[in-house]
Amino acid sequence: MLENLKKAVFEANMMLPQYKLVTFTWGNVSGVDREKKLFVIKPSGVPYEDLHPDDMVVVDFDGNKVEGRLNPSSDTPTHAFLYKNWDKIGGIVHTHSSYATSWAQAGRSIPCYGTTHADYYYGEVPCLRTLTKEEIDEAYEKNTGVLIVEEYKRKGLDYEAVPACLCKNHGPFAWGKNPVEAVHSAVVLEEISKMAYRTELINPNVLPAPQILQDKHYYRKHGANAYYGQR
Amino acid sequence: MLENLKKAVFEANMMLPQYKLVTFTWGNVSGVDREKKLFVIKPSGVPYEDLHPDDMVVVDFDGNKVEGRLNPSSDTPTHAFLYKNWDKIGGIVHTHSSYATSWAQAGRSIPCYGTTHADYYYGEVPCLRTLTKEEIDEAYEKNTGVLIVEEYKRKGLDYEAVPACLCKNHGPFAWGKNPVEAVHSAVVLEEISKMAYRTELINPNVLPAPQILQDKHYYRKHGANAYYGQR
Amino acid sequence: MLENLKKAVFEANMMLPQYKLVTFTWGNVSGVDREKKLFVIKPSGVPYEDLHPDDMVVVDFDGNKVEGRLNPSSDTPTHAFLYKNWDKIGGIVHTHSSYATSWAQAGRSIPCYGTTHADYYYGEVPCLRTLTKEEIDEAYEKNTGVLIVEEYKRKGLDYEAVPACLCKNHGPFAWGKNPVEAVHSAVVLEEISKMAYRTELINPNVLPAPQILQDKHYYRKHGANAYYGQR
Amino acid sequence: MLENLKKAVFEANMMLPQYKLVTFTWGNVSGVDREKKLFVIKPSGVPYEDLHPDDMVVVDFDGNKVEGRLNPSSDTPTHAFLYKNWDKIGGIVHTHSSYATSWAQAGRSIPCYGTTHADYYYGEVPCLRTLTKEEIDEAYEKNTGVLIVEEYKRKGLDYEAVPACLCKNHGPFAWGKNPVEAVHSAVVLEEISKMAYRTELINPNVLPAPQILQDKHYYRKHGANAYYGQR
Repeated sequence: MLENLKKAVFEANMMLPQYKLVTFTWGNVSGVDREKKLFVIKPSGVPYEDLHPDDMVVVDFDGNKVEGRLNPSSDTPTHAFLYKNWDKIGGIVHTHSSYATSWAQAGRSIPCYGTTHADYYYGEVPCLRTLTKEEIDEAYEKNTGVLIVEEYKRKGLDYEAVPACLCKNHGPFAWGKNPVEAVHSAVVLEEISKMAYRTELINPNVLPAPQILQDKHYYRKHGANAYYGQR
Repeated sequence: MLENLKKAVFEANMMLPQYKLVTFTWGNVSGVDREKKLFVIKPSGVPYEDLHPDDMVVVDFDGNKVEGRLNPSSDTPTHAFLYKNWDKIGGIVHTHSSYATSWAQAGRSIPCYGTTHADYYYGEVPCLRTLTKEEIDEAYEKNTGVLIVEEYKRKGLDYEAVPACLCKNHGPFAWGKNPVEAVHSAVVLEEISKMAYRTELINPNVLPAPQILQDKHYYRKHGANAYYGQR
Repeated sequence: MLENLKKAVFEANMMLPQYKLVTFTWGNVSGVDREKKLFVIKPSGVPYEDLHPDDMVVVDFDGNKVEGRLNPSSDTPTHAFLYKNWDKIGGIVHTHSSYATSWAQAGRSIPCYGTTHADYYYGEVPCLRTLTKEEIDEAYEKNTGVLIVEEYKRKGLDYEAVPACLCKNHGPFAWGKNPVEAVHSAVVLEEISKMAYRTELINPNVLPAPQILQDKHYYRKHGANAYYGQR
Repeated sequence: MLENLKKAVFEANMMLPQYKLVTFTWGNVSGVDREKKLFVIKPSGVPYEDLHPDDMVVVDFDGNKVEGRLNPSSDTPTHAFLYKNWDKIGGIVHTHSSYATSWAQAGRSIPCYGTTHADYYYGEVPCLRTLTKEEIDEAYEKNTGVLIVEEYKRKGLDYEAVPACLCKNHGPFAWGKNPVEAVHSAVVLEEISKMAYRTELINPNVLPAPQILQDKHYYRKHGANAYYGQR
């Protein structure tokens, strides 16, 4: 069942240790089949070196396991809620990557200090509030997804233009058109987290990059007039 | 004698350079045989690249060598005291891993800033005081163990719920149910030390994660109602 | 066409991941043929692991593609303008290397704090202003080159003595007598960016190295009286 | 001539890239033959990947080349002066290793914040002043050696107990009983430089480790009553 997607999701998961985004089992990638309204996700707590494509678990958009020998990632309800509500994403990544998690722990959104950031994210990468006691008690993982969707709506953010966020005191979620693009977003997020951290230590009074430069770089790579890469 | 345990302890020791927790010979792992009241530990001052399973040294709970061609680690009396007093630990690790040692040198306990920490340690990882002149002169290594056991008692800490501590101006000790779990604790400790350091530089006024979130993540992985991983 | 130069430029490009100066496709190296007034540059958006020597693109000094199946790097007009105006450079590198980009995002020139810097750059490595809205709208990439050439003139800087600069909110450009020397400059720039960052955190009141020491090291390696290396 | 020493010095030089202490050609190791009053040193400006044992250069204690096809390291007069004046050293290392050089650029001695430092250096690792214009003009490299020897004398430092120093605005020199021990000192120096930097950022008001603890660790490894390692 969904053998090609399982393989793709397995390979995207294996990019996490390759790009040094995970320690032990701290991360997961999923990928969706929009027609079947199902997604495939890493099993919970399995070390990357022991992972095989057929360990991947098939889950529906309410977070119910549809197929698989193993339990899906404990973050599955977060993934399910995002797939259900955001039509245009095809892959989701959660990690505890070191610099992005440090910003999440610090409770700060990542300002856009330069073109590396602007090439991938339009404006700051938001840090969303910690869940309340009620939200945690009721359904922690699902409500993490609810929070992400609601906060993007409330802040007027386009999830395609800002394909990553930080959950306060926790860590990053990133997404994209497919599992590989979601991992790319997670890698870029870690890199801009690292550079923003150093930027502020080099100049504590630094301001975000001028809007005109942010626009230039974002639209050089995205939308109808993009001219970066091979088109 | 204890060939299987020697092999397990050797392999756990070899995880230290693999996870980049040691430079040269700065670290040691031990593992216990509770029935025989003996433990196996790395020999003193032997480089990891020269280490073999049969170099491991067998020691009793008073720190006396029982078998082995080589001298046991100079930290052996610390290990012995912990095994003698804490029934439920099966492995102990000491390293000078870079970030954890920096917190130990700074003389500060590591606050719980996020779920990465809360998944493994319940509350802050304590930094224990430097030994007094009398304690150092009398029996430095043994008294390091005495201090750890007494401070956990005095602070009301559960050594199973907080399986690592920092010795001020020295470095970390970590433990677990077996040698591999002890090394896992040492790896996690290094990672949360790194992220807590960056967290404070990103936001000097940062507060610990809300207790409700700490509880949620700790009990998601530990105790009767745990649901993380394959159970 | 220009097969040897293509091979040299390809090999210089492959040094960028080797020296960990690039993530994904974020960087490019070019090399010039002064007689033919043409240069060879990396294609746009192609991952380094997929790159072959015959993917390299041949471009003239006005930035027009002369030969090649693929689009040249989007930064091609910057390279073209530098080759056209600076006769003595043979290779150019652009990266988003982490520490140098952090200084560029911070908007600060890199002071010369020691001999590692003085061995390669005479005086500080300048951070040049962000382009204006007009400059960006008119011709972003070309005007980046115009800015570099004009600012070196205005500041009285010798581009051979200071073979790298930072573009504010963007990242570094580096150059040299040939593509390999340009990459060397990019590597050194990253290293001195890293050390200057740490130097200021260790001593917030630090001053640049004495001019006499800067002169000694620079002229030990450069000019008629140089005595470093095998001559 | 001195084939065994050349091989030993070659191998010690190759440890520098292995322990990530050098970029390009920025470092050199030498080793001495006390009976012949000659030492062997790396040639100047030769990349490590191209180095062979028979490239090593033989030099006398006044810095004159005695044998070798290549020029010796430009730092040769510094090494010569140290060998001539300090009878008990057998190997010397100079690097621009990143953290130690940052302390040198910051112009600060490295305080002893913990046992990792105390295990190898008795007290702080001193940062020595920049040379004067006169000293630089007269004989820069030799006067670097003169400064080191004179400052150790003036400060009452035992070069065997503090086998490394920082030259302000330049970088570290380290030494030992033989070339391998000198490299060990350079590796330890880099590690304690890194940890002291982080220690101060974690606790800006941190004090050095108590003297009693420094003594305990130093004498646990050095002198008549040492008990660390296999003896």
